[in-house]
Amino acid sequence: MNSRVRIEIPEDSGFGLTHLPYCVFRPRGGEPRVGARVGESIIDLAVALDDPMFAQPSLNAFMTQGPQCWREVRERVHAAAESELPAAAVHSVQAVRVDLPIEVADYVDFYASLDHATAMGRIFRPDGEALLPNWRHLPVGYHGRSGTVVVSGTEITRPRGQTRTSAGTPEFGPSRRLDIEAELGFVVGAGSALGIPIRTEDFAEHVFGVALVNDWSARDIQGWEAQPLGPFLGKSFATSVSAWVTPLDALAAARIPLPAQDPEPLPYLTGSGAWGLDIDLRVDWNGQRVSTPPYRRMYWSPAQMLAHMTVNGASTRTGDLFASGTISGAERDERGSFMEMSWNGTEPIDLGDAKRTFLEDGDEVSITASAPAVGGGRLTLGEVRGRILPVR
Amino acid sequence: MNSRVRIEIPEDSGFGLTHLPYCVFRPRGGEPRVGARVGESIIDLAVALDDPMFAQPSLNAFMTQGPQCWREVRERVHAAAESELPAAAVHSVQAVRVDLPIEVADYVDFYASLDHATAMGRIFRPDGEALLPNWRHLPVGYHGRSGTVVVSGTEITRPRGQTRTSAGTPEFGPSRRLDIEAELGFVVGAGSALGIPIRTEDFAEHVFGVALVNDWSARDIQGWEAQPLGPFLGKSFATSVSAWVTPLDALAAARIPLPAQDPEPLPYLTGSGAWGLDIDLRVDWNGQRVSTPPYRRMYWSPAQMLAHMTVNGASTRTGDLFASGTISGAERDERGSFMEMSWNGTEPIDLGDAKRTFLEDGDEVSITASAPAVGGGRLTLGEVRGRILPVR
Repeated sequence: MNSRVRIEIPEDSGFGLTHLPYCVFRPRGGEPRVGARVGESIIDLAVALDDPMFAQPSLNAFMTQGPQCWREVRERVHAAAESELPAAAVHSVQAVRVDLPIEVADYVDFYASLDHATAMGRIFRPDGEALLPNWRHLPVGYHGRSGTVVVSGTEITRPRGQTRTSAGTPEFGPSRRLDIEAELGFVVGAGSALGIPIRTEDFAEHVFGVALVNDWSARDIQGWEAQPLGPFLGKSFATSVSAWVTPLDALAAARIPLPAQDPEPLPYLTGSGAWGLDIDLRVDWNGQRVSTPPYRRMYWSPAQMLAHMTVNGASTRTGDLFASGTISGAERDERGSFMEMSWNGTEPIDLGDAKRTFLEDGDEVSITASAPAVGGGRLTLGEVRGRILPVR
Repeated sequence: MNSRVRIEIPEDSGFGLTHLPYCVFRPRGGEPRVGARVGESIIDLAVALDDPMFAQPSLNAFMTQGPQCWREVRERVHAAAESELPAAAVHSVQAVRVDLPIEVADYVDFYASLDHATAMGRIFRPDGEALLPNWRHLPVGYHGRSGTVVVSGTEITRPRGQTRTSAGTPEFGPSRRLDIEAELGFVVGAGSALGIPIRTEDFAEHVFGVALVNDWSARDIQGWEAQPLGPFLGKSFATSVSAWVTPLDALAAARIPLPAQDPEPLPYLTGSGAWGLDIDLRVDWNGQRVSTPPYRRMYWSPAQMLAHMTVNGASTRTGDLFASGTISGAERDERGSFMEMSWNGTEPIDLGDAKRTFLEDGDEVSITASAPAVGGGRLTLGEVRGRILPVR
């Protein structure tokens, strides 16, 4: 009954002692609770750290404590992972169900990749400037639907909606241009008050960690509805996030300078916090690798996104999620959406035994990522995965 | 200690026994709790109905119970309002502070007034079609920021942000074109599951009630940022809602046919639930009446908005707020934004001893409304009011 265990970490694990991402999991027959991952194991933090703050169905109660608490808990988790732990505090990742790790407050999606914005501009405005006039001056973004953010593994039902026919009038039916957007999401842990903008330097005082995001997109619904107020039903049916939230501190070795920004951004967007991240993403479509989007090429940094989002005085809350927008590189096999990879459906993508432009029913997409780990090696971000179900 | 009181209702009160709107209030030195208004009094429902569901800082715990509970409580409140009540259960409206009545889940803003959309189109595209091609086929909408929805009376700090100079490049500073949008908001009480659209007929099974909304808008920030993803910081600094939520049942006598819709909407947007509301709004600017927007002219009904918002399978939650968009009539003094009233700042608005185009620091705006009450007379919706503070 009082047996104790020591967690073994496989060599080259993406979940070593300098990573320690958090999740919300349900042990068999149990209530949801916060866990930390080490190797192929989950440490039940309410048990291992004897703290009811972790006997909660989301990370929010923990996150709202602020960055000093985050650092202290991370040290305690590290110590626990190296100790003998009560067997009841350790679960196999394979044996538990994971839930959405955060209670999402507001969800904002940006458009921060120069390569993505340029590709979309070329597709939609072949005879005009690829980039709109504001793009190099501010991180363009908009609010999405927080109530339909779902955890990785949730099946995605193909949305129905209005799309434009060649006659210019709408028809109603299942989306025929269902797409992904491979993104990185940033989770606000410690909010900020109305009227007080967050400086780029203070990014790490507010942002708890990162999670991979797939912002499923119905391009045909979006194309008809989005003038003049932006995307709505083409996005709001589902947004998937990984079950694991990687603490910002675990990405310290992935921090790199931003690509050059030209023109120089306005002062509120500069400062020591405006840094980039060296993260390699990978998109698999029905088990076939189709793309490796490089996060390091992103034009706007997450600290700039947060500074911009609050410069008008908007407050932030524990659980706010803001995502980078589609991560694309310059090459076809670095693009983060099928819209770009198939160039608006005109250049099918080779999946080995099949070809695709947009998603078909039954298709499954997995987005994974890795980054340099503190102390060497690489860490693995939690996967975000989803399979398409036909309309009901 | 056990004294009992009977509430007197002033003749012609907009808060008679067929209205009974709900709020969240704080009795002097007390915790926030749910109240119902009768005349100039607030009934403390946790005390009067002896139910801890109302000893809560928002209406959400009550709303999530669903429409049968809403009807039963409304009957019990009606009976209580006609009875002698313990003095401890009755407060003067003047003596308490009111809070935001709902915990806002997702906030969506529509664009449902034909007169408003036409006016905005004429201002921005004087040489083109006033209405965009999708406008008559679907209620155009987008997600706003739920974390910055504030209760009536909250002071509004002028936002700062990027605006476009005549050279086409941006500058940073206080918004110079700060505006209002007079709107009606609809509060979802009983949510709906992912994948299950809400039919127009089922509107009243999900929507708990209505509140007036002022969707403050920085037109100069919005104009620079909004391509291609829609409004963001031009709106997200604050959205004010009235402290009082009027139950949908109280508006039964205000229910009217919609204006003709041409072309006939797609089937999912028709049905017996697609009705309008005969509500008269009034906008006062520094105490001067400047506009009387007629809700009855709105093109898209709230039931159509909700059916559209969920037709792609998006779920809804208790506390979702969706607003109509600016309510405008055909005449200048029926417009619901200063953008329209001043025709993009070119035709100043006469405030008696002053003229205005957009809001100046210290200005105060009040939006009020009334509608036919069940059984005769008129009910008064809760006011939404706010004063502009200078940038910090």
